[in-house]
Amino acid sequence: MQWYLVAALLTVLTSSQGILTTLSQSNGKYKYDYATVPFLAEVFKLIVSCLLLWRECRISPSVRMTTDWKSVRLYPIPSVIYLIHNNVQFATLVYVDTSTYQILGNLKIVTTGILFRLFLRKKLSNIQWIAIVLLAVGTTTSQVKGCGEASCDSLFSAPIQGYMLGILSACMSALAGVYTEYLMKKNNDSLYWQNVQLYTFGVIFNIARLLFDDFRGGFENGPWWQRLFNGYSLTTWLVVLNLGSTGLLVSWLMKYADNIVKVYSTSMAMLLTMVLSVYLFTFKPTLQLFLGIIICMMSLHMYFAPPNMLVDLPLPVKSTTESLKEVSVERKSDS
Amino acid sequence: MQWYLVAALLTVLTSSQGILTTLSQSNGKYKYDYATVPFLAEVFKLIVSCLLLWRECRISPSVRMTTDWKSVRLYPIPSVIYLIHNNVQFATLVYVDTSTYQILGNLKIVTTGILFRLFLRKKLSNIQWIAIVLLAVGTTTSQVKGCGEASCDSLFSAPIQGYMLGILSACMSALAGVYTEYLMKKNNDSLYWQNVQLYTFGVIFNIARLLFDDFRGGFENGPWWQRLFNGYSLTTWLVVLNLGSTGLLVSWLMKYADNIVKVYSTSMAMLLTMVLSVYLFTFKPTLQLFLGIIICMMSLHMYFAPPNMLVDLPLPVKSTTESLKEVSVERKSDS
Repeated sequence: MQWYLVAALLTVLTSSQGILTTLSQSNGKYKYDYATVPFLAEVFKLIVSCLLLWRECRISPSVRMTTDWKSVRLYPIPSVIYLIHNNVQFATLVYVDTSTYQILGNLKIVTTGILFRLFLRKKLSNIQWIAIVLLAVGTTTSQVKGCGEASCDSLFSAPIQGYMLGILSACMSALAGVYTEYLMKKNNDSLYWQNVQLYTFGVIFNIARLLFDDFRGGFENGPWWQRLFNGYSLTTWLVVLNLGSTGLLVSWLMKYADNIVKVYSTSMAMLLTMVLSVYLFTFKPTLQLFLGIIICMMSLHMYFAPPNMLVDLPLPVKSTTESLKEVSVERKSDS
Repeated sequence: MQWYLVAALLTVLTSSQGILTTLSQSNGKYKYDYATVPFLAEVFKLIVSCLLLWRECRISPSVRMTTDWKSVRLYPIPSVIYLIHNNVQFATLVYVDTSTYQILGNLKIVTTGILFRLFLRKKLSNIQWIAIVLLAVGTTTSQVKGCGEASCDSLFSAPIQGYMLGILSACMSALAGVYTEYLMKKNNDSLYWQNVQLYTFGVIFNIARLLFDDFRGGFENGPWWQRLFNGYSLTTWLVVLNLGSTGLLVSWLMKYADNIVKVYSTSMAMLLTMVLSVYLFTFKPTLQLFLGIIICMMSLHMYFAPPNMLVDLPLPVKSTTESLKEVSVERKSDS
């Protein structure tokens, strides 16, 4: 499968995620416990990965599976990073409002680029760096508060701790992505076996989180497993399936493509959601959304287009043929 | 003189133009007739060009000056285009408000690129086209209405004629620039002689305009020459000198650089004015200004940086040395 098809599918699914989540609310409120959605999505991913692994083992007997504890113990780390990230996110929101947090969230595009370069030692060209910065600028542009919108001058007025935590949050988010890519690519293990390990720990951490929430709430509503499907509608199940599927696609991209592809995919999804919201909900199209889309499209082209398409260079072909001519001339003179 | 020094000077002067014009007002109104400013600026440019031409002729006797009527008759054309442009501008403002007009004005960056390609047959690389579009997007981004600002949803609500005229206005503006560049570069005539022709017609057209205004006003305030310096302060004179100087710099750029350099110069000036306004006037810095500056800086780098700095390419040097090795190997085997 081509990576760009997977990336396009991820864009569509991530975009529907936002719309489905909105549709799953009744009167702007969740009738179900939202914390159960990621848990069920992890379970879904685990089941799918187990089935695929089983099928793979049946077809070929030489499926690569490292079961050494030294390898397995690396798989809970993404979950740990996400756990820390969630807490940093929570702390950030003490200092800044949600729209400022959303704006700061675009920094993760740039931090992903930096960590991608530092930890995975992938070299990016000058134009690719510019493209990454422009992608972050483009998504931010589309989110600029238009006139007539509520909260106004909060963006530059939050305490400095808020911005520091926002940057930390962007770094944690990038670190989780870059670490997962490292994990998926470090050996030739079957993708499904790697997924099984990843999602087993994912399920465990989600259970721990639900339990923790219950403890903190003093078991007021009973333990989580008794009210797991409370208020679930068809749309809620679609949200679960969608979240699970996007997770599986991200895993695939981490192994066969990279973090930058994922970042483009999710950024485009954000813009697509905003465009779809214009039609589906009463979302007014703004000039900044239009500008943001142009910037991101240009960035996409700059990052992925082959270099010789982007710039006109003295063709290396020419210098080679010239040297060949010299060779033939010299041969003649030698003979 | 290096073109980028001239471009930088043009940026600073164009930027001060906006600030000086604001400073020359008292209580938001002009105490002088603003139409006299471009006239006096043309006179200033004509005098300076005459003096420089005289000096040039004294130093070297072989100054190139085509005095053929076939050549001279081309010089009023920029003035004619500007005259039409002013009327189109006036017609556009019947349909759209000034802030929409300002936003549409950024289109002239793109139209300049297109006419530059079509009429002057300059080839631009893919990345340079992207840079030009991004420059227009960046300047537009910086002008996006923030929350709390007055007129709100007027941008997409003007009648279609307004947008058509706005596009026509952008084309006229680009045409004037591209035609002037053609005029300045079409032969090796002395820049000062070309300027003398250009500004002589400029002065004539400005006089015609002032006379026309007087006729339309029924000579209520007397003929224009009687009230030429009415209400002029030191700042007004600075506005005149500044406008004249920027005109001379633009002429220089048209001959020794090109329209795209001029477009970058004036776009950067627009951003610089906005930044300076934050300090000088009660202008609130916005997120969109910050984003616009980043986009324009990236665009500047993309347009002017050498291609091999932007992308990592299989070095042509390598292929040459490889062929050289082959040559030496073959020589050895031959000998």
